Amino acid sequence: MTLALAEAARGLGRTSPNPPVGCVIVRDGEVIGRGFHPEAGEPHAEVFALREAGERARGATAYVTLEPCSHFGRTPPCADALIAAGIARVVVAAGDPDPRVNGRGLEKLRAAGIGVLTGVLEAEAVRQQAGFRSLVQRGRPQVIYKYAMTLDGKVAANGEANGPVSSPESRRRVMQWRNEADAVAVGRGTVLLDDPHLGTREVEGGRDARAVIFDPEGSIPATARALREGSVLVVRQGTHSPLLGDPRLTVVAATSLGDALVQLGQLGLATVLLEGGATLASAFFAEQLIDEVRVFVAPKLLGAGLSPLLAPVRSMHAALRLRDVTTELVGGDVLITGLLTD
Amino acid sequence: MTLALAEAARGLGRTSPNPPVGCVIVRDGEVIGRGFHPEAGEPHAEVFALREAGERARGATAYVTLEPCSHFGRTPPCADALIAAGIARVVVAAGDPDPRVNGRGLEKLRAAGIGVLTGVLEAEAVRQQAGFRSLVQRGRPQVIYKYAMTLDGKVAANGEANGPVSSPESRRRVMQWRNEADAVAVGRGTVLLDDPHLGTREVEGGRDARAVIFDPEGSIPATARALREGSVLVVRQGTHSPLLGDPRLTVVAATSLGDALVQLGQLGLATVLLEGGATLASAFFAEQLIDEVRVFVAPKLLGAGLSPLLAPVRSMHAALRLRDVTTELVGGDVLITGLLTD
Repeated sequence: MTLALAEAARGLGRTSPNPPVGCVIVRDGEVIGRGFHPEAGEPHAEVFALREAGERARGATAYVTLEPCSHFGRTPPCADALIAAGIARVVVAAGDPDPRVNGRGLEKLRAAGIGVLTGVLEAEAVRQQAGFRSLVQRGRPQVIYKYAMTLDGKVAANGEANGPVSSPESRRRVMQWRNEADAVAVGRGTVLLDDPHLGTREVEGGRDARAVIFDPEGSIPATARALREGSVLVVRQGTHSPLLGDPRLTVVAATSLGDALVQLGQLGLATVLLEGGATLASAFFAEQLIDEVRVFVAPKLLGAGLSPLLAPVRSMHAALRLRDVTTELVGGDVLITGLLTD
Repeated sequence: MTLALAEAARGLGRTSPNPPVGCVIVRDGEVIGRGFHPEAGEPHAEVFALREAGERARGATAYVTLEPCSHFGRTPPCADALIAAGIARVVVAAGDPDPRVNGRGLEKLRAAGIGVLTGVLEAEAVRQQAGFRSLVQRGRPQVIYKYAMTLDGKVAANGEANGPVSSPESRRRVMQWRNEADAVAVGRGTVLLDDPHLGTREVEGGRDARAVIFDPEGSIPATARALREGSVLVVRQGTHSPLLGDPRLTVVAATSLGDALVQLGQLGLATVLLEGGATLASAFFAEQLIDEVRVFVAPKLLGAGLSPLLAPVRSMHAALRLRDVTTELVGGDVLITGLLTD
C-alpha cells in the first residue's frame, strides 16, 4: 500500500475534482502492475495497473488507495474492470465518500467473490485525499495555511519588503507543495508588498498551480505577477473593477470567505495552499476555515515584526490544538505540520 | 570525558562563582575514581576523584572537564594534587580562562612529566561552563532567555491571566533548568500578572534558584511569591521604595540593564535564566544581552496575543541567526535552543 500511495502522489495537483489514487497489483510477492490517476478525464489508477499486469492479473492481489468506483462516470466502473481481469483479492486504504460509490464498489467486488480487505494505511490515504474529501463532503476545498516564521514568531519585518525567513531547502519544499496543490492563494497586501509569481520553478516536472488572489475591491495592478493565465480573482460581490474584464482571469464575486471557498470548489479546486499574508490568514482562521498548517520555524530572532495570525483575542485555554502533528528538520529550519479540523 | 561531563553536571547551579567541573580517573579501562565540584569552598572535582582512587591513582589517567587549577585559592592547586598522586596522563576538555590559571595548570602538569591532551569534547564543556566563562571573561552572568510559544508565535493571550502554553513535560524541564541556574529572572509585569514562585518543585534533590526581579521603581507588592529569602530586587538607581529595606532581599540599584548584570555577577551569579515577560526580554535583546534562547513551540494556535520579543524594528535581513541549534521533542512540544553571542 505504501507503493500504491507513492503512485497516487504522482497525480497530486492534477486530478481534481477527482481524487489522487494509486494502484499496485501483486502476484506471488512480485509487483506486476502499477498505475495512478493522472488527470480528470483520463483512466483511473486501476486501469493502468491492470493494463500493465495483462493476463497475469488473474488470481493476483490489487492494492488500491481508494475504494474502486462502481458507477459510470467519464470512464467505466473500476470494480467491473477488476472483476473482469480475474483479480482474486483487493486491499483498499480508504472508502470513497462520493455518494455514487460510498461502499457500493466494495459490495460489487464481494458479490463477485473477491476477497476485500479495507482500512490499510487508511490515515495516510485520507490525508493524501483530503482535498477530494473536503470537496465531496463539505463542498469546499481543503485549506492549508503555510508560513515561515522566526523563533520569535515573526513572519516579516513591519511594512518592509522582506528578505526570506526560511532556508533555500524550505523554500524548495514550498514549491513542491505548490506543485501538489490545485491553487495557491494570497491576499492583496502580499501582492502589493512582494508581487510573488507563486510558481513552481525548481521543481522537476512541475507545473504552476492556479493563483487565487483575494482582493475585495479588485484594486491590485493588472501587472501583478500573480495575475497570469488561469488565475482566479476573488472580489466582494457588487464590486466594480477593470480587472473583472481581464480575459486571463476567472472572477469569483463572493459574499464571504466561506462563500468564496464554495465557489472555488465549484471551479474544481480541491486543495488551496494559503500563503498569506497575515491579514487574510487571520480572517480564514477567525472563521475556522483553515484545515491544516505547515510552519517553518527558522532559528533566528527578529525582535519586532508581523505575526502569522492577528485574529480576535482568545485566552490560552481556548487555543486550538493541532492533531496529527509532524516535525522534520529542513535545511536548518524546523518544519511543524498539523491538522485543525476533523 | 562524557562521564566527567555528567559528573560536572551534578554541581550545576551550586558552584558559582566557581565552574562546574567533573573528573574521572581511569586505569586499565576501569573507572577507579569520580568526583565533581559540589560548591564554592568545597574541594575541587580532582580531589574527590583522587580520594576515591587512592593508591591506585599512580600511573592512571585523569579526565577533567576543565584545566586543573595551578593557584592557591580556597583550596590548594589541583595540578599539584594530580602530580603528587602519581597520575601519568591528564585529558582535559577545556582550558581555564581564569587569569590565575589560563594555561599554567597544563604547564605545571607537563613540567612534571605528565602527558597532557586537551580539547576533548571541548564544545560541550564550554557550553556547560558558559556561566563561569561569562563571569571571568565579561564580568557578567550568562543570560538564557527561556519561553514557550504557540505555533503562531504567541507567549500569552493579551493582558489576561494565562493558562500554560507548553506541556507538563516541558514545564518539568524548565524546573530542571531552574535547578541548574544560579538565578531565575522576571520583570514586574510577570510578577503582577502571574505572581510566580519560580521554584523547582517536582525536581528530585532540587533547590530553588535565587529569584531576580527587575522592577525599576520597586513597586511590586511585598507579598509577591518571588520575593523570598535570598531574592534580588533590581531597581533604577535613585529610586525609593519600601522594598529596599526588606531584610529578605538583596537590592541592586542599577543605571542600566548592563550595569545590573555586572552587579549580579559581583554577587557571584554566573547563570541567569530569564523567564520574561516580553517587555523585559525585549530590553535585554535590544542591548544584545541575551546569550542563549531555549524555546518550546507548542502545536496550537492562539490567533492573537503577546509576542516573545517586542524590540525595535529590524529588517528580516538583519535577523540574528542562532548558532549550535538543537531540536528535541518534549511532551508534544518542539524544544529549539541556540546561542546568540560568541
